Amino acid sequence: MIKTRITELFKIKYPIIQAGMVWCSGWELASAVSNSGGLGVIGSGSMYPDVLDSHVVKCKKATKNNFAVNIPLLYPNIENHIDTVIRNKVPIVFTSAGNPSIWTKKLKNHGIIVVHVVSNLKFALKSQEAGVDAIVAEGFEAGGHNGLNESTTFCLLPFLKKKISVPLIAAGGIGTGKTMLAAMSLGADGVQMGSRFVLSNESSAHINFKNAVINAKDGDTSLTLKEITPVRMIKNKLYDKIHNAYMNKKDTEDLKNILGKGRAKKGMFEGDLDEGELEIGQISMYLQSIKSAKDIVDEIIQDFYNTRNKLNEY
Amino acid sequence: MIKTRITELFKIKYPIIQAGMVWCSGWELASAVSNSGGLGVIGSGSMYPDVLDSHVVKCKKATKNNFAVNIPLLYPNIENHIDTVIRNKVPIVFTSAGNPSIWTKKLKNHGIIVVHVVSNLKFALKSQEAGVDAIVAEGFEAGGHNGLNESTTFCLLPFLKKKISVPLIAAGGIGTGKTMLAAMSLGADGVQMGSRFVLSNESSAHINFKNAVINAKDGDTSLTLKEITPVRMIKNKLYDKIHNAYMNKKDTEDLKNILGKGRAKKGMFEGDLDEGELEIGQISMYLQSIKSAKDIVDEIIQDFYNTRNKLNEY
Repeated sequence: MIKTRITELFKIKYPIIQAGMVWCSGWELASAVSNSGGLGVIGSGSMYPDVLDSHVVKCKKATKNNFAVNIPLLYPNIENHIDTVIRNKVPIVFTSAGNPSIWTKKLKNHGIIVVHVVSNLKFALKSQEAGVDAIVAEGFEAGGHNGLNESTTFCLLPFLKKKISVPLIAAGGIGTGKTMLAAMSLGADGVQMGSRFVLSNESSAHINFKNAVINAKDGDTSLTLKEITPVRMIKNKLYDKIHNAYMNKKDTEDLKNILGKGRAKKGMFEGDLDEGELEIGQISMYLQSIKSAKDIVDEIIQDFYNTRNKLNEY
Repeated sequence: MIKTRITELFKIKYPIIQAGMVWCSGWELASAVSNSGGLGVIGSGSMYPDVLDSHVVKCKKATKNNFAVNIPLLYPNIENHIDTVIRNKVPIVFTSAGNPSIWTKKLKNHGIIVVHVVSNLKFALKSQEAGVDAIVAEGFEAGGHNGLNESTTFCLLPFLKKKISVPLIAAGGIGTGKTMLAAMSLGADGVQMGSRFVLSNESSAHINFKNAVINAKDGDTSLTLKEITPVRMIKNKLYDKIHNAYMNKKDTEDLKNILGKGRAKKGMFEGDLDEGELEIGQISMYLQSIKSAKDIVDEIIQDFYNTRNKLNEY
């Protein structure tokens, strides 16, 4: 057991949060992480309202521990998702990609712990003003949707730590005990890991996508699509198409048309490595193994203590 | 005293290396850092051969401790710089921005410890094969010249640690004891800090530039000029001019003409904040104070131990 402001807030054993990810984190992964001492998070961004409802119901059956739902605030018909988490008494909600002042109060009025994901100081302060219970600070190296400022985990964390008072969860580049310890050195009260849990038995990522993550080397991901919504993905045929259009000064509407619909599902869930969007963090450069969520959490904790012991030798 | 493979290699008290920086790190700063227990580095990239010679001679008089010279391998008439460090028996040379296989052997034949700066695995392995004694791994957040892969300190360090055997120095995002501890959690044997020492009494940076660094917020620097040579700088009028040209698909020669000559000197040494190149790391978002090199080193070490004690409470 590791006691921090985050483990106390979420009533969990370890300050390890599994990121809510589109197409990769349903109830199987979320409940497995919560059963292993971390906080599992259902990624609702890729779910229709009835699908989210069914995942929440199954997750509650599969774990007695706290879990959360991540709701991207740009989700169409977001009211349905908000209703689903309130109706099912989901204990914790992570909101992202939008204005934290719109839903925080309503969720908190229903006794829900609210966490907002940010990538800069402006939104960290906005979140705090909106009354969130904690903030996820997401660095440039993180996979999937991200901010425009390009601030890395190494710089963003100590910076926000000086400016905000609510508990701080680090995201971006974290997937081992060493990186967890580093994030906590920089002031994090907990860590959020996405890419590491994509490579779990319980993640719903397609095996082709998992293998692409294992094969990724340094320089193989890029934060792109900054004109539509910045996202870090593996450079593939789809990436080249978008990047060429961007370099040829296509406007936002053109880019949206080239991107088309359903690219994330096609890539991460259906395993189309050429035409699909493969959202993953830079840490994919050294992630190598698919394991159970429990083995991942246990390994991280062991590595955390081993590394701390090593640092104490200096 | 902190004992690591780097302090043993360089025979220094603390594993803190002051980055060799154009226009900012002459003999005054290098000797002050070496006298404070770290390793001071003269940045030769902005010096004519006779100027470098004079800085080396003065540095040797000002400190009994080891110091180093950083030589960018793209420097015109590099033979002169190589001759200068050999003739003056400079104990340690950092090479950067070029192929490590060209000069490493000659320098080592003269008993000089050689360190090469890299930002990806390919050049880390190349450096090791060339026989360097240590490697600086520079993350995306670092100021000044950098690589194209955009790998951040948080991801690059643990990745290289698994692949190389020579001692590893972390650079990019480091300027406090907390960040030093984080880098060592990730596998670094030592840390290199540039931006922090720009804000020292002994740095030769213009006071306008120092104030611009203090005033920089998150998102105020950008890694740009990727077509000529990638460099992280503060976004100012010059940056806008270059960025607009880039977005309008100007070719490399056009970009070189727009950039012109002497921009780094104009910005960092002469203090022209509009037309000069202001090279600094992302960490400028929270650096706030100008101090003596000795106070900087002492403060970092104190912060390192305080943070380690705090981590031990978990």
